[in-house]
Amino acid sequence: MTQPAIYLDNNATTRVYPEAVAAMLPYFTEHYGNASSGHGFGAQAGVGLRKARIAVAGLIDATSEQEIIFTSGGTEANTTAIRSALAVQEGRREIVISAVEHPAVLMLAADLEKTEGITVHRIPVDTLGRLDRAAYAAALSDRVAVVSMLWANNETGTIFPVAQLAAEAHAVGALFHTDAVQVVGKLPISVQDTVIDMLSLSGHKFHGPKGAGALYLRKGVPFRPLFRGGKQERSRRAGTENVPSLVGMGVAAEITAARMEADLSRIATLRDWLEAGLLKLGGVMVLGDPAHRLANTCTVAFDRIDGEAVLTKLARLGIAVSTGSACASGAIEPSHVTRAMAVPFTSAHGVVRFSLSSETTAAEISRVLAVLPEILAELRPVPVADPVTA
Amino acid sequence: MTQPAIYLDNNATTRVYPEAVAAMLPYFTEHYGNASSGHGFGAQAGVGLRKARIAVAGLIDATSEQEIIFTSGGTEANTTAIRSALAVQEGRREIVISAVEHPAVLMLAADLEKTEGITVHRIPVDTLGRLDRAAYAAALSDRVAVVSMLWANNETGTIFPVAQLAAEAHAVGALFHTDAVQVVGKLPISVQDTVIDMLSLSGHKFHGPKGAGALYLRKGVPFRPLFRGGKQERSRRAGTENVPSLVGMGVAAEITAARMEADLSRIATLRDWLEAGLLKLGGVMVLGDPAHRLANTCTVAFDRIDGEAVLTKLARLGIAVSTGSACASGAIEPSHVTRAMAVPFTSAHGVVRFSLSSETTAAEISRVLAVLPEILAELRPVPVADPVTA
Repeated sequence: MTQPAIYLDNNATTRVYPEAVAAMLPYFTEHYGNASSGHGFGAQAGVGLRKARIAVAGLIDATSEQEIIFTSGGTEANTTAIRSALAVQEGRREIVISAVEHPAVLMLAADLEKTEGITVHRIPVDTLGRLDRAAYAAALSDRVAVVSMLWANNETGTIFPVAQLAAEAHAVGALFHTDAVQVVGKLPISVQDTVIDMLSLSGHKFHGPKGAGALYLRKGVPFRPLFRGGKQERSRRAGTENVPSLVGMGVAAEITAARMEADLSRIATLRDWLEAGLLKLGGVMVLGDPAHRLANTCTVAFDRIDGEAVLTKLARLGIAVSTGSACASGAIEPSHVTRAMAVPFTSAHGVVRFSLSSETTAAEISRVLAVLPEILAELRPVPVADPVTA
Repeated sequence: MTQPAIYLDNNATTRVYPEAVAAMLPYFTEHYGNASSGHGFGAQAGVGLRKARIAVAGLIDATSEQEIIFTSGGTEANTTAIRSALAVQEGRREIVISAVEHPAVLMLAADLEKTEGITVHRIPVDTLGRLDRAAYAAALSDRVAVVSMLWANNETGTIFPVAQLAAEAHAVGALFHTDAVQVVGKLPISVQDTVIDMLSLSGHKFHGPKGAGALYLRKGVPFRPLFRGGKQERSRRAGTENVPSLVGMGVAAEITAARMEADLSRIATLRDWLEAGLLKLGGVMVLGDPAHRLANTCTVAFDRIDGEAVLTKLARLGIAVSTGSACASGAIEPSHVTRAMAVPFTSAHGVVRFSLSSETTAAEISRVLAVLPEILAELRPVPVADPVTA
């Protein structure tokens, strides 16, 4: 009688592709050498790393795999990029970010502001989550060391025009970093088509394992490492390479690149079907920019309903969704993204994010649409005349 | 005819215990949720993390598993500890390290010296690799933010008396951090028997996977995170937890703790046999402190022989050793450890490290001892009258 679980929280993390796990296995118990070692065990690990680096470079269309610095994930890549940009441009003491960055960037910026006296410009967004371009232009100056902007927002899937934003940053001599953790694998991208200097990505967002990420660093861009020590990653990131996880990310990158076009088309169809069904329920508002949004993300705000309660009721049925970013779950307040987009008060607590993947099926979407009406009916208060709002 | 490979480079990295790999597998494709998520997938991941945290706390005898902050490895843990200690004690602008620290600490210290004006005291060692205690005492003052000392040296296995060193650091109000990456799993230790404030460890040194490490942070010790963002690790280390690798480290910690006494006794017997055999070859000097040395490490300097050449010839026979630390391999110069210990010139280039593990067998040691005489004979120059030294 138990229904199989349905996973619609792919912006938080994804199931690792079995092919990626299979590729990782030999690196735990056979080719387990340290890639820095001068013997056969080390050489085997080195071969695996090189293949992974080429695959990851391919996924973002980097010019060379040497532009890929492996990290432990997106947060490390973001931290490395922003701190490096400040360190290599000592005369520039300002940074520009959006108000809807991932906490990894928002909180780092707040930390730099508080402890190192860096000036932080936080560019607002409109109700669709689109960047205020006039405010962005006004914030740019020769005092700015780096602009760091999400390529796509994790909570709403809204895509920023980073190619143009990067060009504007360069016009004032600032470096441009993009947190592309939510975009890589969900949108065909080419760093060669942009002047982006640095880009962060994370393997577990595209069916690779957790603990593997990368910082793209364009050739010639000045850089200061966050981790010093061993000469790993051409002395740009010390520490024994996490060979198995990086190999797994590489295989996930290969599969993702090969299937992306077909997968995205199918995912978009399922997402649109889900979204149409949700809108039919009434009292539902879709968040984000409909014209520029990731194909897999459907984030809605239910009017006069607690998103956490929806999440809990769905979870009891084995259906996994999110109320925003996993990093902010458990929080009672509406997320910073919801606030920045000025979602109306009666909806602000009702945000639920459905994020699909290449593994999502029509049957799963169908079941979600089938169970939601009863859940919403249970949660939505009986309409009564409210002396305040009537 | 091909002999099975022999792995004697366990100070660089170890083979992952199959039991650890088996425990990791469900977290890639079944319990793959983000541990921060509020649904069942997330809860499953959270359960795995908690078990791993308890196991790692147990391996170093921490008071509570909440004193364990998971990291991506030793380099991150070392960097976090030292930068944190400086950040939380702004009035103290000096650090004390030994001259034989791992590059992760040595190079970080050099970076802090150069870019932030921190004064670094590098305490010398004697020819056995023992810390100069008088110099250490002289360097301590109320200007010191943190002392960071290896618990055991990666190249020679020499053990520092960190319990006493920590007490001396506390006497001047400095924090004490130890890079225990080479000790955890190779020596029974109890942080409760010391006043050590912070300790770095790495899972892949005790048969866990690469990419998983931890910083022990004693309860009550002031701390500033290196990675900001999500609330992972009680807001002490942001970033999606590498659940599978951390689970693997936990299982390796459990196995290591359960077997340590028996394993170490057997390893020491094999090591001593290897060492006696090496000494019989002549022209061989054992490096390190014979009275305080890890049971698994045998580092020797061959007189008038290039250690890299020995490594290469052994590697061709499928025998993996190191000429020092893997992080320094490929380097032509003698390692900083060899130089700090003032190894005589004719031996300084002949350093070879044999590092054993619980998986090392008597047959393997026997084979190594059987092949070495011919290798050394091939490499050692015919003794001729040298006009300079004769």
